[in-house]
Amino acid sequence: MTRGRLEAFSDGVFAVAITLLALNLGVEGPGHGPLLQQLGDRWPIFISYLISFFTIGIIWVNHHALVDNIVVVTRTLLFLNLLLLLFVVAIPAATSLMALYLVRGDTDSHVAMALYAAVFEGMALAFTAIFGWTLGEGRTRHPVPAEARRSAWWRFSIGALIYIFAIAVAFVSAPATLALIGVVALYYIVERTPAGQRLDR
Amino acid sequence: MTRGRLEAFSDGVFAVAITLLALNLGVEGPGHGPLLQQLGDRWPIFISYLISFFTIGIIWVNHHALVDNIVVVTRTLLFLNLLLLLFVVAIPAATSLMALYLVRGDTDSHVAMALYAAVFEGMALAFTAIFGWTLGEGRTRHPVPAEARRSAWWRFSIGALIYIFAIAVAFVSAPATLALIGVVALYYIVERTPAGQRLDR
Amino acid sequence: MTRGRLEAFSDGVFAVAITLLALNLGVEGPGHGPLLQQLGDRWPIFISYLISFFTIGIIWVNHHALVDNIVVVTRTLLFLNLLLLLFVVAIPAATSLMALYLVRGDTDSHVAMALYAAVFEGMALAFTAIFGWTLGEGRTRHPVPAEARRSAWWRFSIGALIYIFAIAVAFVSAPATLALIGVVALYYIVERTPAGQRLDR
Amino acid sequence: MTRGRLEAFSDGVFAVAITLLALNLGVEGPGHGPLLQQLGDRWPIFISYLISFFTIGIIWVNHHALVDNIVVVTRTLLFLNLLLLLFVVAIPAATSLMALYLVRGDTDSHVAMALYAAVFEGMALAFTAIFGWTLGEGRTRHPVPAEARRSAWWRFSIGALIYIFAIAVAFVSAPATLALIGVVALYYIVERTPAGQRLDR
Repeated sequence: MTRGRLEAFSDGVFAVAITLLALNLGVEGPGHGPLLQQLGDRWPIFISYLISFFTIGIIWVNHHALVDNIVVVTRTLLFLNLLLLLFVVAIPAATSLMALYLVRGDTDSHVAMALYAAVFEGMALAFTAIFGWTLGEGRTRHPVPAEARRSAWWRFSIGALIYIFAIAVAFVSAPATLALIGVVALYYIVERTPAGQRLDR
Repeated sequence: MTRGRLEAFSDGVFAVAITLLALNLGVEGPGHGPLLQQLGDRWPIFISYLISFFTIGIIWVNHHALVDNIVVVTRTLLFLNLLLLLFVVAIPAATSLMALYLVRGDTDSHVAMALYAAVFEGMALAFTAIFGWTLGEGRTRHPVPAEARRSAWWRFSIGALIYIFAIAVAFVSAPATLALIGVVALYYIVERTPAGQRLDR
Repeated sequence: MTRGRLEAFSDGVFAVAITLLALNLGVEGPGHGPLLQQLGDRWPIFISYLISFFTIGIIWVNHHALVDNIVVVTRTLLFLNLLLLLFVVAIPAATSLMALYLVRGDTDSHVAMALYAAVFEGMALAFTAIFGWTLGEGRTRHPVPAEARRSAWWRFSIGALIYIFAIAVAFVSAPATLALIGVVALYYIVERTPAGQRLDR
Repeated sequence: MTRGRLEAFSDGVFAVAITLLALNLGVEGPGHGPLLQQLGDRWPIFISYLISFFTIGIIWVNHHALVDNIVVVTRTLLFLNLLLLLFVVAIPAATSLMALYLVRGDTDSHVAMALYAAVFEGMALAFTAIFGWTLGEGRTRHPVPAEARRSAWWRFSIGALIYIFAIAVAFVSAPATLALIGVVALYYIVERTPAGQRLDR
């Protein structure tokens, strides 16, 4: 298996998932009140579209940086990658469900938001598993020095830890969880990871 | 990050978005009057399908011409590109909403059309930002001469200016805005941009 | 523009369109009679899925054979290609509409079937336009000899002629049109085009 | 036809089909009972999402291993590949139908589950046909030794045999069929095929 086809398939899945997000953007339509009011009432849908869109975008950017360094593609890597995609593919549905209940603000909005954060947690764990796999002897083109490993583990752990925390917070305040997940997205956009630094060199 | 994967992911998103446009093409179905009459009543859906389809097609053509010249792919470029795709992905939903309200012709049709034009405005601004980024020292294979820069800025500005104007016009006449956006699409198809000229050489 | 990106984008659109076809495959669901009976009543949906699937597949195969031979990618070619994709993208919606009305067998089923054939006609004409474009001086790697041109024009004309005939037949018998379009698909699968012969060498 | 474009188109179809699976993941929404209870009642949807997702993933992995070894791409191969994709594309719809009826557990759930297994049977047979085609003289880069052929035939036959058995079992117990199909997926994930061994070397 060449790395190229792993990337092509993953890129395809990322591209479809990020585009399906927009299927949530509709409104109930004519006969359900003025359009501006309908749009206003559905603000969680627009916020969650932004957050989910950039989170998938970040995963894609980081996925590339990680996979680009890999020299051997084994069956184990392929299935870890499928596990990652399993969660990526679930993001549009989880976003839609979360936004639908957040609009209503009832008790179920806590459950829906916890589920949304749980999908991101699963994605972060799968990503960490792929990163862990790349640390094996002779699996990457450029060996990853010990210090870079520590900082990379730390960076991944932050995401996975905050998402777990976000699941718990969802049962107290659903909007607070959404804000947390948005902050994680911002952090990963702004932060210069080693991979990001290499990109910017 | 190689340019190749940026293109592959963007092409995937363009391809999915342009195909999802056609999900709007249905009618209400049996029991809602003769089919020909249903199709006739829904003419805005067919017109807006054409306009949105060719506008996404043009963005894709220009995106290629722009990205093809880039030598370094930085994190900044990746996120500007994500910003562009954020608006591209929203086009099918905005088209659907606009066409749905334009069919009814009520006061909300102004709001829906303004939103439609606003998505194109956002797309044009993101595109201009990417163009601006490419002007940085050493970012393109072929340096862009001063004169070509001026004409390119002018070309991009025209799109962004007309789309802003189209947002305002939407509150006076929604069909006039649709016509304006169609004219912009025609202009970009016919016009020989420097990139287009290079293509045709 | 390299040929590669034209192919990548087109492949993406073909892949999404062919997959969206399957969105029609559902039934009305529990509470609408025994499942087997529902499936039986909806046979036009399954037949039309097969016909549309293989027709898109054939277009993809022929598209490759045609584009593979091209050396220059001009703006004109890009827009002819967009025109082809405009019809390809409309196939799932036209298939869905046609099958929906064919199930009912009422007078509108003639209109829906004519529309279905008209989308294929548009696709065949766009394909012929691309083929015509490739005959221009110096546009292909391997020059197309005069005899091959004649037979290729003939082959394309057959498709475009039968589809036009199929539009007319739709107003007499919708199932006959569906059968005609199925026969065209079979013909293109079985027939050894020059491109096909080159493939099989 | 280069192998590259066959792979690109197939990867696109696999990517879209695997992502469309998640369209089934929604619930009936507010007003249909507590969210947790709705999610609990719909467990077959989540189980079948997992099984269909990994089965498509496995087909993709095996498809790559098979196609990667091919040196000539003939028209026959292209249409065998289209036949495989015909079944792949039908998986999301078959999954959705099966899960919808399994939730209800009525007599139609047997029919829906048999249909689900039949789609996998069709996919396995198409895959076997492609494998059989590759055994022709001079069609693969690395000739497949007689022993590897026997074990490969055996491996493919197991899948196709179990799926046929699963169709029959569906009329006795729908959940048992689902479990069988899940076991086949696990088997193909864990098993080291010759192709898999090559991957892991």
